[in-house]
Amino acid sequence: MITGKNYIGYGQSSTSDITYKTFNPELNTENPWVFHEASAEEIDEAVRLASRAFESYRDISGKRKAEFLNAIADEMEALGEPLLETYMQESGLPRGRAEGERGRTLFQLRTFAELVAEGSWTEATIDTGILDRKPAPKPDLRKMLIPLGAVVVFGSSNFPFAYSTAGGDTASALAAGCPVIVKSHPMHSGTGELVASAIVKAAEKTGMPEGVFSNLNSSGVEVGTKLVQHPGVKAVGFTGSIKGGRALFDLAAKREEPIPVFAEMGSINPVVALPSALKEKAGFWAEQYAGSIMLGTGQFCTSPGLIIGIKGAELREFTQTLGEKITAIAPTCMLHPNIHGAFNRLKEEVSGQPEVCVVAEYEKTVKTNYAQQEIITVEGKTFLENNTLHKEVFGPFSVVIQCEDKEEMTTVIKNLEGQLTGTILGEEEELRENGSVVEALQNRVGRMICNGVPTGVEVCPSMQHGGPYPASTDSRFTAVGIHSIKRWARPFSYQDWPGNLLPDELKNDNPLGILRMVNREKTTAGL
Amino acid sequence: MITGKNYIGYGQSSTSDITYKTFNPELNTENPWVFHEASAEEIDEAVRLASRAFESYRDISGKRKAEFLNAIADEMEALGEPLLETYMQESGLPRGRAEGERGRTLFQLRTFAELVAEGSWTEATIDTGILDRKPAPKPDLRKMLIPLGAVVVFGSSNFPFAYSTAGGDTASALAAGCPVIVKSHPMHSGTGELVASAIVKAAEKTGMPEGVFSNLNSSGVEVGTKLVQHPGVKAVGFTGSIKGGRALFDLAAKREEPIPVFAEMGSINPVVALPSALKEKAGFWAEQYAGSIMLGTGQFCTSPGLIIGIKGAELREFTQTLGEKITAIAPTCMLHPNIHGAFNRLKEEVSGQPEVCVVAEYEKTVKTNYAQQEIITVEGKTFLENNTLHKEVFGPFSVVIQCEDKEEMTTVIKNLEGQLTGTILGEEEELRENGSVVEALQNRVGRMICNGVPTGVEVCPSMQHGGPYPASTDSRFTAVGIHSIKRWARPFSYQDWPGNLLPDELKNDNPLGILRMVNREKTTAGL
Repeated sequence: MITGKNYIGYGQSSTSDITYKTFNPELNTENPWVFHEASAEEIDEAVRLASRAFESYRDISGKRKAEFLNAIADEMEALGEPLLETYMQESGLPRGRAEGERGRTLFQLRTFAELVAEGSWTEATIDTGILDRKPAPKPDLRKMLIPLGAVVVFGSSNFPFAYSTAGGDTASALAAGCPVIVKSHPMHSGTGELVASAIVKAAEKTGMPEGVFSNLNSSGVEVGTKLVQHPGVKAVGFTGSIKGGRALFDLAAKREEPIPVFAEMGSINPVVALPSALKEKAGFWAEQYAGSIMLGTGQFCTSPGLIIGIKGAELREFTQTLGEKITAIAPTCMLHPNIHGAFNRLKEEVSGQPEVCVVAEYEKTVKTNYAQQEIITVEGKTFLENNTLHKEVFGPFSVVIQCEDKEEMTTVIKNLEGQLTGTILGEEEELRENGSVVEALQNRVGRMICNGVPTGVEVCPSMQHGGPYPASTDSRFTAVGIHSIKRWARPFSYQDWPGNLLPDELKNDNPLGILRMVNREKTTAGL
Repeated sequence: MITGKNYIGYGQSSTSDITYKTFNPELNTENPWVFHEASAEEIDEAVRLASRAFESYRDISGKRKAEFLNAIADEMEALGEPLLETYMQESGLPRGRAEGERGRTLFQLRTFAELVAEGSWTEATIDTGILDRKPAPKPDLRKMLIPLGAVVVFGSSNFPFAYSTAGGDTASALAAGCPVIVKSHPMHSGTGELVASAIVKAAEKTGMPEGVFSNLNSSGVEVGTKLVQHPGVKAVGFTGSIKGGRALFDLAAKREEPIPVFAEMGSINPVVALPSALKEKAGFWAEQYAGSIMLGTGQFCTSPGLIIGIKGAELREFTQTLGEKITAIAPTCMLHPNIHGAFNRLKEEVSGQPEVCVVAEYEKTVKTNYAQQEIITVEGKTFLENNTLHKEVFGPFSVVIQCEDKEEMTTVIKNLEGQLTGTILGEEEELRENGSVVEALQNRVGRMICNGVPTGVEVCPSMQHGGPYPASTDSRFTAVGIHSIKRWARPFSYQDWPGNLLPDELKNDNPLGILRMVNREKTTAGL
């Protein structure tokens, strides 16, 4: 049952009179539940409980943290049909997507459980002492990753499960040993509350300290601002717009004690179509890209918003086919009237720029909040001179750039802002010959795809989801996959520490059997 | 020969009329050389060359980078006696220290050479594709660390070799594949120029691209400010004061494209003396700490500036003996009149606070620029109420805090700012009984030492040099040891990339023989 209240530790609370509702974009009506924004006192209490919980949660074994994470997955699964219904009511996304995203979220939780139960993620490193070293004895030093403290997670609009309440940021932070306070996304606070109830139930069942998790409602910016400025908060995870992410980054950087903000923000995911790709497979790629651009109504952070080719018959054919294929796909619902409004506004702004040619736009009438997909094309020179054309249009929209030659292609790539992904279409031999194009692309992105589409973010250790700014605020970390746990941990050294008082990860006999670096050799053996 | 010019790539240049000299604090006279500050044009040219060098340097093999790093060490060693003389003339530090620090610097360079020649530092991770996976094929993903781009390194005042021109920041950035521009420290620009000449010679000999290294002189803040704001610069390393580090951090955070600043700043390195330690070994620890506080004239970032004990006869005895031992040590020269002046000013400010008792001060006349060591003591309550007492007094100075009981001790620790190190003196059993004291300390520091002194930073993989702000701006990284290379690299994924075009680190047959994670198992085997 959705109460509209905040979860402050194990308890529910609604002391503020500021309320809001979520919206069903498919039906174009408000949802029935009334959500209470978190008050200043509730925020303070959530942070106080989280800081207190940290004192014990940080030292709970990996095996017990794994029990907690697995219990969250089980409790979330147990919410069954009503959770899926709420998800669909608050996002306009179809059942298949709801089920798929729930599956991914459960998989993420269980993967982190496995990771911390095993324990090698702590990067334990041991250098034993040498008492008779000259001129001075060598101390015994042992290092491992330890958690940072209370983490604030901002739910994303486009992943109500996988990058919100119990999503990747929350799962990785809890796995690292950090209590989490979620700032619920105002577009799906009902989904958020249900998932929060699963986390709280899991925490109680597995005996976690109260405050290890809280869930705060908010429709404006105040709650988020207060959280990021709170001295008790030690790190922030965010998925959303450049404007929102940068605002949080700036707040965090201005604190007396600056804290890391891991914001995954905008990306237009450039696709470089080398001549061979369009010569041999223009129709194939046009169909693939029509599907990729339309996936999730274009509301994926890896949606391809930019396709870069070299002027000529092949590119013309590709562009025209892309237009035909994409307008043949039935439009779908966007997440919220605000997102739909922004899509239309930005689409008009970008396609209204001088020297822009609209290739195709879905022109038939659509239901309210449904997106009308569009493809435009410009010359390389025009793109280079007009930064408005570089803007992310969140939704099913893509720009095809016609370059004069490979040199201009490289210049266009070099002038792009940082991106999550970059794709190259072309034969192996052509990639080899175009080393400078590939290098320029690599320099601007976090993941490079060959002969594929950027949508579809595989959750596995080799996935890098993050890239040079503004794709993310810190390209040295990923938001997807097991390595995302490193965002919430710091290395810590024990020098000449009594063996019995060391954490298990660093004890001589390696009771956890983890992989460690001992005197510069990787080994699972004890000392 | 010292020319006073900047190294811009392979060439030397001095277009600015702004000049300065370094100072010999031991003789209290200016040194003869005239240094030209880098002009705006020289800065631009250094960054342009570095950005161009990055395009090829990033792809040079680990083995060749190792040749370059080893050649730097060899060329630096070949500078011989004149380099040591210049170091002493510009720092007032004794010959033993000059030799020891040179040894450490050469060791660091050669250690990074070994690291990148071996290659496993790139954290190569491979997840092979599954074409027939349902509902969608699993792509082939391969991830490794790649360099960020041009790095600016600010030389530190207190380590003219080990944390300046060819010091830890430079060595780790060059090892990662990042060109380096050093902003030379104005107190030892002659030492810096000589070491820079060794780096440039090594770069030419081993065929590195011009611009892989530049060395810029500057006595004010302008050159550093321009460098940190320059769009071509992608990361910053700094060792110095909180004020300086924070200013650079703020500049970098305000850029259109924010960049990481790794600043290792202030620390007073608290030492917690549990009752057993003082009961049994008060004399021993007093002698150890007198030596640690005096080491390098107290000009180490890990100098113990705070000793926390519990009121009583034992603490009184320890404090008194510490005072006696420390005043029995002959004063030594500080790095520069400015540092000596700041030491005296801060020492006076802190010891002049209400309810402060001066335990011991070296009162005999000393040579100009020599530091007069001092020990003061205050009650826990006084310390908690007065933040001036928390200030780092850079030099041989330490505060002994007398707490009422262990509770107040914990409160004092919890109220400390972030620190590089924390030390606990006490028997194993007592440490176990005082878990909350230990945990409070762990929460505030990057390295915890048992029954030792914090000075003496061992260069090894298990060393964590860095801690919660303001000890450093990002506690998730270390400034010392092989893992410091991670500051300058970001993970990068290749999806479905042609095997022949993958970097060697990610090729099926593992030609480098490095340790990789392949389908979630660590192995050196090929695929």
